[in-house]
Amino acid sequence: MKTRSKDAIVNEGVGRGTAECGTVHFVGAGPGDPELLTMKAHALLRRADVVLHDDLVAAEIVALAARHAQVINVGKRCGEKKISQGEINEQMIDFARRGLEVVRLKSGDPGIFGRLAEEIEALEAAGVAFAVVPGITAGIAAAASVGASLTRRRKSSRVIFVTRHHASERGAGRSEDWGGLAREDTTFVVYMPGRDLAGLQSELLEAGLAEDFPALLVSRACTAEQREWATTIGELCDAPPLDPPSILLLGRALESAGRNVRSKLLSTIVEDSDCSPRSEA
Amino acid sequence: MKTRSKDAIVNEGVGRGTAECGTVHFVGAGPGDPELLTMKAHALLRRADVVLHDDLVAAEIVALAARHAQVINVGKRCGEKKISQGEINEQMIDFARRGLEVVRLKSGDPGIFGRLAEEIEALEAAGVAFAVVPGITAGIAAAASVGASLTRRRKSSRVIFVTRHHASERGAGRSEDWGGLAREDTTFVVYMPGRDLAGLQSELLEAGLAEDFPALLVSRACTAEQREWATTIGELCDAPPLDPPSILLLGRALESAGRNVRSKLLSTIVEDSDCSPRSEA
Repeated sequence: MKTRSKDAIVNEGVGRGTAECGTVHFVGAGPGDPELLTMKAHALLRRADVVLHDDLVAAEIVALAARHAQVINVGKRCGEKKISQGEINEQMIDFARRGLEVVRLKSGDPGIFGRLAEEIEALEAAGVAFAVVPGITAGIAAAASVGASLTRRRKSSRVIFVTRHHASERGAGRSEDWGGLAREDTTFVVYMPGRDLAGLQSELLEAGLAEDFPALLVSRACTAEQREWATTIGELCDAPPLDPPSILLLGRALESAGRNVRSKLLSTIVEDSDCSPRSEA
Repeated sequence: MKTRSKDAIVNEGVGRGTAECGTVHFVGAGPGDPELLTMKAHALLRRADVVLHDDLVAAEIVALAARHAQVINVGKRCGEKKISQGEINEQMIDFARRGLEVVRLKSGDPGIFGRLAEEIEALEAAGVAFAVVPGITAGIAAAASVGASLTRRRKSSRVIFVTRHHASERGAGRSEDWGGLAREDTTFVVYMPGRDLAGLQSELLEAGLAEDFPALLVSRACTAEQREWATTIGELCDAPPLDPPSILLLGRALESAGRNVRSKLLSTIVEDSDCSPRSEA
């Protein structure tokens, strides 16, 4: 008989659910590199009876599921068929009620722009036990991948995570209200910055950030296809189109990482043209 | 002969360093539970020649180092002797120049309030290669540990990480300037909230947040000693003293997690008094 995981602290001890019911583990898959899974995420993935995963989760990570597991892509853009949030909720509840251990696998960290709240509410309403296993969120992975610190003592003392994916996180058509947020001593981590960098640039300059404020675009962080572009808000529009998903980092703390990204790019170009670089750091 | 790690992308290809020099890996140790290490952090820790770790890193994690490794606590409060930032930098550089693989182990994520920027600058100046391996930062771990999402579609569309550790991150005596940051649709993750909750409460109310704005204190998240307290800004001062390190989460997104924390606390009290609970969810 299945028993509940000792880590399923939420919803336990409050008299709901039954002993035969499985637990739903919301598991953060991190940015894409299987090595950036936590040990716990890896272990749960290996032993789960059911894995319900988002579209964005890397195939190599999904492939870690046990041979006996039912693996279902519940990504909203899954082929022709669109799976609604309500259907995802129903599947989690249904599998758990059959006594199965369910892993609900989300890219990055489930609690940052991952629609975790809605899924938790559905489980609570159904009396299904759950637990959350944190993951490396895309913004933190992007910073690490270019050797950047998001904070800098006395210079960048605050980090703000926002998304440009307006419809899903703020309600359709509403763009970020930067007034009051846009300060010199802040690092901004922008999820899904999108193609309209000119619009974003206008918003940031109007909010009072300087033209020379450092900006770093990281596409597909921590995957084999990672690409970076270091610039400033003033020259943000000159960035080449990079494949989604990407992260835009903004802040004075990123100055030296930006220099390194530019040097690396330069040395790659020089190496490609068969000239050996000397010391253009 | 030691070669540089393929992941030490920064500082490579810019003509600095030598082939005999080891790499310094800044590794996030996560919140304390060894299971919340990434696979990569675990592997690097197992094979490093030298592990330089902070005071806050859990003993069980430090114990994962290889038998041959030199393990050094460079925590600022290490016994009687205080190790300065300059001495930590010197040690990293010295070990790397001897061709050793160095893991610089920091609790949580190295890039969030971890003084990573200063250490990177020292390595860059010395021409030592480095790489950053992200970790689960304390704030994200705290949210997951109480089953909370930091964002909530259409309600909490922004997450702000701040620290109350004034001296180290903002310059002595400077407290957070909440004006413009304090909005209903934001989740705040406060590192090292400290004992002066009354002072913090005044700042938050003056900045315009409501008395009923949900607050969740999590002490020693993801360790056997974890404790939680769910309240509101209006009743923040009634929170019992909790052991550091702790995290204060503030935001409308935390409402239902707060209810669960209170229910759990209630059911624990009822169980302790030997009465079986029925359904006080």
